[in-house]
Amino acid sequence: MPYPKRVKMVEVGPRDGLQNEKKSVSTDTRIELIERLADAGLPAVEAGSFVSPKWVPQMADTGEVMQRVRRREGVSYPVLVPNMKGLEAAIAAGAKDIAGFAAATETFSKRNTNCSIAGSLERQATVCRAAIDAGLRVRGYMSVVLGCPYEGEVQPAQVADVVRQLWDMGCYEVSLGDTVGMGTPAKTQRLIEAVSAYVPVEKIGGHFHDTYGQAIANILASLEMGMATFDSSIAGLGGCPYSPGATGNVATEDVLYMLDGMGIETGVDMDALLDTAEFICARLDRPTFSRAGRALGLKRKKAA
Amino acid sequence: MPYPKRVKMVEVGPRDGLQNEKKSVSTDTRIELIERLADAGLPAVEAGSFVSPKWVPQMADTGEVMQRVRRREGVSYPVLVPNMKGLEAAIAAGAKDIAGFAAATETFSKRNTNCSIAGSLERQATVCRAAIDAGLRVRGYMSVVLGCPYEGEVQPAQVADVVRQLWDMGCYEVSLGDTVGMGTPAKTQRLIEAVSAYVPVEKIGGHFHDTYGQAIANILASLEMGMATFDSSIAGLGGCPYSPGATGNVATEDVLYMLDGMGIETGVDMDALLDTAEFICARLDRPTFSRAGRALGLKRKKAA
Repeated sequence: MPYPKRVKMVEVGPRDGLQNEKKSVSTDTRIELIERLADAGLPAVEAGSFVSPKWVPQMADTGEVMQRVRRREGVSYPVLVPNMKGLEAAIAAGAKDIAGFAAATETFSKRNTNCSIAGSLERQATVCRAAIDAGLRVRGYMSVVLGCPYEGEVQPAQVADVVRQLWDMGCYEVSLGDTVGMGTPAKTQRLIEAVSAYVPVEKIGGHFHDTYGQAIANILASLEMGMATFDSSIAGLGGCPYSPGATGNVATEDVLYMLDGMGIETGVDMDALLDTAEFICARLDRPTFSRAGRALGLKRKKAA
Repeated sequence: MPYPKRVKMVEVGPRDGLQNEKKSVSTDTRIELIERLADAGLPAVEAGSFVSPKWVPQMADTGEVMQRVRRREGVSYPVLVPNMKGLEAAIAAGAKDIAGFAAATETFSKRNTNCSIAGSLERQATVCRAAIDAGLRVRGYMSVVLGCPYEGEVQPAQVADVVRQLWDMGCYEVSLGDTVGMGTPAKTQRLIEAVSAYVPVEKIGGHFHDTYGQAIANILASLEMGMATFDSSIAGLGGCPYSPGATGNVATEDVLYMLDGMGIETGVDMDALLDTAEFICARLDRPTFSRAGRALGLKRKKAA
């Protein structure tokens, strides 16, 4: 299959990224980060989550972020919503786009949401219906699709079965998360084959972690299957080479570098991304985790 | 094209890797590294170079390394040889396998070898003929095949033309080096297409640097073209995330993780590789640059 001409890049740095960083940033900084990312041309910027601040204190200010952030025409700002309480808060804060989630394995589901897969899908269905009735759009997230920290190998059919249920709830897109970063290209392609029996391939997103250094290859393998939506995190926010247990979101700059090099349109401007990465890395007081970002940054410095 | 069933992994850590590390190691350490790598199942371990110690002091002990290193049946130990003086030293040290090199651009050739492309090919031809006459095998290395730090873009036809000349000298294999790490998958495939007009694809090697985070994707793209030989460096020796200007050899563990995951045979044992990476990183007093190595290392520690 020929590569898609255009790819939608979904930026998850301000949520999935920041909530996994050691240092937290101010509300103003998170707002500026979101605005800069949208200005850089990213068509979707995950802005926060409405989960209990007990669990994720870094996202406690998501209501304020959503109320104050300057919205760009044509850009979506999904927020993670686990339950009805979260949905109410999201609607009150003016969110138009929410993300629900489910896991591919029972153990991960129980550890992550304290709930079986069936139970979490039921809860998700209620939220989904209410959100769509209120005029919101819902994105579905699947975790541990290419390997589970507790159960190890995960079968494509097992993932496809849960994805089908999320899709049938009315999600506009389902993002397949390789949460542990264990996936390799051939497995990725087998998974997409299984999932695309239920969901049109152009509605499947890829959310790859680079923990094992495979994310960019897995994205390439996905492109070959016709996939055209990928989640990534500026400067690799959420994963850090120097800390054990790094979650390792693939860096937006690394993905864009590949897509640019392949002549695939994204609408995203690399220079603006590099500026934004410098900004947020300075606030977090840590170096970038993006290899392309580091190399291009050094090149810019030399040229200046 | 289906992926090859078996891949030959050429380990370049003890030469290309170590000569680009800040800290140098003792002769004993280099010998132990080479022996451990061969024991781990790597079929080719680049052992050193016979260039002037004025230019590369880290490799000045290559003669001693080659004389003392325990050889494993079926493993080759290529050494880099730039000229007749180097060849004589290599033969005296018992080398059976040498590597010659040429660049794809005039500027890189001049800066790197103080010689035009034509001039360096002429020198290489003399060395090559003498080596083959003496019963040695010669591997050809090409630099800057996917981008040049001085000239920028490099055309596939331009690379293919130089590769053809190296091949016609009698090299058993030509390794295409993305020295700057600028390559992306579609460009990599166009390059292989151009080169395979002259060299059988199973005799083309890929030498990718991960400076821009693209190496694993470029290897995947190469596998799809039928290539089955890849150079890599244990622990990513020679590239360092914390130092500017890192050259960024792709890490052997990252490559092996992908190949293992795809069911492609290599004969290389991951556990032995991880032990070897720990050994050399301790001697160099630096962390591993391999993402798979880091993730698997943490997993082993937890399990222990």
